[in-house]
Amino acid sequence: MKTLIIALGGNALIRFGEEGTTEEQFRNLQVPISQIAELAREYNIIITHGNGPQVGNLLLQQEATMAVTKRPLQILVAETQGQIGFMIESTLDEELMRIGLDEKKLFLTVLTYVKVNPEDPAFYNPTKPIGPAYSVPKPGYVKTAKGYRRVVPSPKPIKIYQWREIKRLMELGGWIVIACGGGGIPVIKEKKKLYGVEAVIDKDLASAKLAEQIEADILLIATDVEKVAINYKTSNQKDFSKLSVPKAKKYLREGQFPAGSMGPKIQAVVNFLETGGEQAYITSIEKIKDALIGKAGTHIYREN
Amino acid sequence: MKTLIIALGGNALIRFGEEGTTEEQFRNLQVPISQIAELAREYNIIITHGNGPQVGNLLLQQEATMAVTKRPLQILVAETQGQIGFMIESTLDEELMRIGLDEKKLFLTVLTYVKVNPEDPAFYNPTKPIGPAYSVPKPGYVKTAKGYRRVVPSPKPIKIYQWREIKRLMELGGWIVIACGGGGIPVIKEKKKLYGVEAVIDKDLASAKLAEQIEADILLIATDVEKVAINYKTSNQKDFSKLSVPKAKKYLREGQFPAGSMGPKIQAVVNFLETGGEQAYITSIEKIKDALIGKAGTHIYREN
Repeated sequence: MKTLIIALGGNALIRFGEEGTTEEQFRNLQVPISQIAELAREYNIIITHGNGPQVGNLLLQQEATMAVTKRPLQILVAETQGQIGFMIESTLDEELMRIGLDEKKLFLTVLTYVKVNPEDPAFYNPTKPIGPAYSVPKPGYVKTAKGYRRVVPSPKPIKIYQWREIKRLMELGGWIVIACGGGGIPVIKEKKKLYGVEAVIDKDLASAKLAEQIEADILLIATDVEKVAINYKTSNQKDFSKLSVPKAKKYLREGQFPAGSMGPKIQAVVNFLETGGEQAYITSIEKIKDALIGKAGTHIYREN
Repeated sequence: MKTLIIALGGNALIRFGEEGTTEEQFRNLQVPISQIAELAREYNIIITHGNGPQVGNLLLQQEATMAVTKRPLQILVAETQGQIGFMIESTLDEELMRIGLDEKKLFLTVLTYVKVNPEDPAFYNPTKPIGPAYSVPKPGYVKTAKGYRRVVPSPKPIKIYQWREIKRLMELGGWIVIACGGGGIPVIKEKKKLYGVEAVIDKDLASAKLAEQIEADILLIATDVEKVAINYKTSNQKDFSKLSVPKAKKYLREGQFPAGSMGPKIQAVVNFLETGGEQAYITSIEKIKDALIGKAGTHIYREN
């Protein structure tokens, strides 16, 4: 069986305009997870996911009281891996039960920490929006497409520490693993010590790094648009059903894909395809299954 | 290699009188984890842990603000599995590096959810203390040995859902798995749906249930006393180096072991030994290695 990594965007959990209650998140998850359960017949699957709104909420909550000692951002990222991992895994469990696959598959959510470079320029230039969007400016917040949001550093993932374990599970065959939650917990390594750092890693770049390390076959990034487009939201918008790596890189250089949005997704699939990946897709949460059979989404491919 | 489950008590993370900062928790973890890293040469190991103070802190934080939608208790339990799992796993990683075992071992923290009975009487009689202890009474709080604490229902674990996956890893050999954090995320199953419930499962009872399901050989419960005692903290205190199951059950019936403290630990080792477990130990965090070679702690055994 081929190994397929599916990176779930934030809208897999919280839709535009929702408050993000636990009930809403469970309900929303059924859309991608019911498709993923079906795909588990054909693929070894790794599910990755973001954590922007969730980690921002934890930050807001811990800033609201002095009664409890504060935890650094990387610990909050670890908490979101538990929070979201449980919601994804138990939904997957139900969807596998629904199609009679629950006892035939083994599935786990694994905590994931990721090496970053302490010299990464991202630490001097925070760009990753987290938490809720506000309609008015606040100190330390920047304007994003959704409104004013807090931004934190987003260093590049260098190594997913749990790659050996995840690769072993994929070799066993038939497993579904939930990993790299929120892009992974960022750590730096100095001599034989690990230090968490206050940052949030992009989950698409982390997914591509994991794919490279475990030599996954297919990477699919599920987001809120069905296809990659240039001249997005203009009268010249052009959607792509297929996009070659050289063209993707050209448009990326031209600024067609904004940072913190389509930019890192394109970079992630380019990284994946340039480090040996076979096939890559970007599509909407609703079209995961259709994209893999060429009926929806954007198929990104190497030209050779 | 035999499979050894080590259940870490709250003092593995937060010592009496500490505030429970992230730094304190990482430092405290070195005591048990350095021993566990050494034991990984001889055993397949599963580490389980509590979450009382940590889950209570998350509750306090989310009650402190209306700005963020509230999550039910079971989601907070899931968050503590991420939080504490990361602290344990990265400390284990460092300790394995220190002794040159990090590349020879595979290790993972896995989210764990646990089936409970919706008719469990615990739901009508909350007994599990969580969060900080206060010196004065507060509404909904009860008096414990450490002070006034919030109490929540603690239903019995019926089934660890991830037992199949954990058993598979133990069969592969050489793995170290961190699981059953905070006793596991409590869920009820109705038809083909899973529903989280607002409760905290006792981590020792959950560890014994996991041990039973995966047929583990040895269960060691690490707590804040070196030996099990009767007439505890009286002039007649009697410490045990060895304790048979029938005697343990007799003292348990006589009320020698308080609920929420030594009681569930004794019940857990009794459950374990009566469902096929080979050896069980209760000792302090400092004496894990010594207890396993008969130099410390209480060895609980079947008489036949």
